[in-house]
Amino acid sequence: METEGQAAGRTRRRNRDAAPKLLRAPDYRQLRHPFPAQTMFSEDEVAAIHDTALRVLEELGMRVLLPEARALYASAGARIEEDMVFIGRDIVSAALASAPKSWRLRAPSALRDQDYAQGSMIFMAGVGCPNVNDRERGRRPGSIADFVETVKLCQHYDVIHMLGPMTEPQDVPVHLRHYATIRAQLEHSDKPLFLFSRGPGQVEQGFGLIRAALGLSDDEFTRDVWVSTVINTNSPRLLDNPMAKGLIDFARAGQMCIVTPFCLAGAMAPITPSGALALQHAEALAGIALTQIARAGAPVSYGGFSSNVYMKSGAPAYGTPEHIKMQIGGGQLARHIGLPWRTASGAASNAPDMQAALETTMGLWGASLAHGTLIVHTAGWLEGGLTFGYEKFINDIESLQMFAELCTRPSGTAAEIGFDAIAEVPPGGHFFQTGHTMERYQTAFYAPVVADLNNFGTWSEAGAKTADMRATDVWKAVLRDFRPPEGAAERVERILPLIEAGTAAGGAPAMD
Amino acid sequence: METEGQAAGRTRRRNRDAAPKLLRAPDYRQLRHPFPAQTMFSEDEVAAIHDTALRVLEELGMRVLLPEARALYASAGARIEEDMVFIGRDIVSAALASAPKSWRLRAPSALRDQDYAQGSMIFMAGVGCPNVNDRERGRRPGSIADFVETVKLCQHYDVIHMLGPMTEPQDVPVHLRHYATIRAQLEHSDKPLFLFSRGPGQVEQGFGLIRAALGLSDDEFTRDVWVSTVINTNSPRLLDNPMAKGLIDFARAGQMCIVTPFCLAGAMAPITPSGALALQHAEALAGIALTQIARAGAPVSYGGFSSNVYMKSGAPAYGTPEHIKMQIGGGQLARHIGLPWRTASGAASNAPDMQAALETTMGLWGASLAHGTLIVHTAGWLEGGLTFGYEKFINDIESLQMFAELCTRPSGTAAEIGFDAIAEVPPGGHFFQTGHTMERYQTAFYAPVVADLNNFGTWSEAGAKTADMRATDVWKAVLRDFRPPEGAAERVERILPLIEAGTAAGGAPAMD
Repeated sequence: METEGQAAGRTRRRNRDAAPKLLRAPDYRQLRHPFPAQTMFSEDEVAAIHDTALRVLEELGMRVLLPEARALYASAGARIEEDMVFIGRDIVSAALASAPKSWRLRAPSALRDQDYAQGSMIFMAGVGCPNVNDRERGRRPGSIADFVETVKLCQHYDVIHMLGPMTEPQDVPVHLRHYATIRAQLEHSDKPLFLFSRGPGQVEQGFGLIRAALGLSDDEFTRDVWVSTVINTNSPRLLDNPMAKGLIDFARAGQMCIVTPFCLAGAMAPITPSGALALQHAEALAGIALTQIARAGAPVSYGGFSSNVYMKSGAPAYGTPEHIKMQIGGGQLARHIGLPWRTASGAASNAPDMQAALETTMGLWGASLAHGTLIVHTAGWLEGGLTFGYEKFINDIESLQMFAELCTRPSGTAAEIGFDAIAEVPPGGHFFQTGHTMERYQTAFYAPVVADLNNFGTWSEAGAKTADMRATDVWKAVLRDFRPPEGAAERVERILPLIEAGTAAGGAPAMD
Repeated sequence: METEGQAAGRTRRRNRDAAPKLLRAPDYRQLRHPFPAQTMFSEDEVAAIHDTALRVLEELGMRVLLPEARALYASAGARIEEDMVFIGRDIVSAALASAPKSWRLRAPSALRDQDYAQGSMIFMAGVGCPNVNDRERGRRPGSIADFVETVKLCQHYDVIHMLGPMTEPQDVPVHLRHYATIRAQLEHSDKPLFLFSRGPGQVEQGFGLIRAALGLSDDEFTRDVWVSTVINTNSPRLLDNPMAKGLIDFARAGQMCIVTPFCLAGAMAPITPSGALALQHAEALAGIALTQIARAGAPVSYGGFSSNVYMKSGAPAYGTPEHIKMQIGGGQLARHIGLPWRTASGAASNAPDMQAALETTMGLWGASLAHGTLIVHTAGWLEGGLTFGYEKFINDIESLQMFAELCTRPSGTAAEIGFDAIAEVPPGGHFFQTGHTMERYQTAFYAPVVADLNNFGTWSEAGAKTADMRATDVWKAVLRDFRPPEGAAERVERILPLIEAGTAAGGAPAMD
């Protein structure tokens, strides 16, 4: 008799000299959620949260700083009092009627296109991080060199489906930063593009670069979705200038706004999950309405990033039970209004440790059971988004790839079950040499990126490297061997003269 | 405009001087799965796997070493050829008809009783580990002192629902080890008890100690389930002497056998998930049948611990996509035969790092979506069960408690949503001081055990302790402040003379 632990040790020893070549090449490029969407609130409660959000917009209103946006709301019938906008439920209904339910998110390479729709599972790396951190170079403010590296890391792994602003290239002046980030994305990647809404100059120039790189006419550009932006409201109930302008400009150009209130329950939002979701919902509906007023039929994603704070310090928490409850409730609200939607995982941990892995993995499961169309911050986020961690990124890729594997169901045919293989092996024997095994072993199982499955002795002899230490080797190898995708050199070639001319002309300022 | 990361930083600063007292006292003692059971195979495929298992038992048979067990199988109509037992499907059907569908798992304290039934979610710590490891004392063979510490750690956290053999007290001679482990469980805990099936002497003496400690007559003992054992088959298709004897003796005494084939796909089982599950199912059914032949109506849990090996080395892997697929498929098989069942999470990692957290968390979600009644190895398992890690245990407790929190649904009543609170806070303001927040903040959110939610600066100044380092402080404090539960002293007092007499009489040998 032996325990499970001892039996595991026995198995390890059995085959330790065999090192077969594995030939698996899974396709993680387009995924759909492996499990059905779950619920956290009753249908009545969802309706009550939705109705509360409508009351918030009608009775309490949103503060909208941009006069152009207030004028658009007014044109649709909203009541305006100074910078407050009171949005009737008829305006919201009209917006939800005209907003498309799904669209094709185009990429420089068609192989990277995504169906932006309920049921799709699209992963974005951790984004919005002012700092980066790795074990070799330490924690530092993000630079354009770091931004380029993060684009390369995201490009390398198919399970990252969209680019984003992984880190902020703080060594590039703000009025030129959109040139640098669009260039880096086009030069090193062929995945769907991201552009910050930092005012009309940067947005229009960014669109121009993309049209030029991809050889699109204005019509071709506007007809499809080639670039996305995230619109964060300043919760509670405040829409600032660049965000409002971004909603208008992206909508008019037919490009995707991802409207994402950032509602931390107990801080910028009510302390209850249902209350934080009501505020999130109100603010998201206000943003969605503005896009549809600007251009009916513009692609706009519902979004939410509601989590809670730790009440002892006011610090945001991620991957918590409350976060998961609000993810799943957010999914119910998205389905209630029939739009695809964005959610996020995340991590508050300051280091790439067990806390970080736990937070991000819990958030990933919550986001999937919530059927987030787009799941942001899935790889590399640390410190609640203040740092993009390279070692964390690599370990999160493991998590995402494992999750992606769940999208493929195993087969239960007679041949797969393999009665004959069971018959072939005597009691107490092993299956290593059966035909059933030999036919399948090269492709049977997921092969890890960074997990070390050696036994303790072998692992110790090899330096007892923990997951973060091993991840350093992995990202360095990815960057060292990186090759830009096909067509990238040509695409970037087309925009270099535009960037040069734009730079000479002073770039474009960020909007206050 | 600010990114989500920057907004998170702003929130942190807002309230950093406030350190309110939190009063939350959640009850994690009895849990039910928060999400519905999921599927990985079609109903037809489940039926095919079940049918293949019946064919395995009928046509290929099990090697059963114990003559008493073979005689019992024969008495039910099985065909015997030397030590091979061929079990017809009528025998299996009769066993499934007589096996109870649920029972009360009794504990020394009734507050710790569990409903062992489909839908319940019962967590057991990592068990069966020959070694233990912590940051202060290093990796070492388990001793009785370590066993006692692990019992105390399991007792301290309500989210651990059952005791098990966390580590092997290798400094206690095998013929006396059952005395030491039963004593430690009774002396430091009031949770459901575990006893290894190491032959009839140890089992009968173990039962005697429990009867004496709890003041139960033979009838009272046999009428309820007071102690459990795990029966591992030696896959493929081999049932050894102590395991077979345990099935018989526990069944006759009305105590719970958890029949758990350990089927590593590609090693001791077919390489496919459906094939490994077919073998698991066959072996589990053989064990279940033996309990019902020994005593119809005996409580017996279906079980499975099927995962895969890493084909490059033959090493077992846990928390992998294949593991999760087999967990969920195992749950379908358990529902197919209508029995409560045991599954497991686990970790192959050699250190308490991101890999370890990822593996165990993935396995935990898989086990819950599989609706495992009992989920084993949920806290502390490292090295595929060769080591019980104290720091890993503490971090896994975080994971389990977060999961337990998901069992409570948030409310969506008008009072909870809090329209008035939203009305009270101006655009861009915060909710820290609203009445809605003040009424709830002390109990609103899960309070972490080991997660550090301080910002990077504060965390760095405090020594930049990673999750494993912080966990050392936590387990040391738990052990330092440990108080045995009410009644434990009296219970253990009753068995000390029996242990003394038993020891003097030579204990009981383990069965070969």
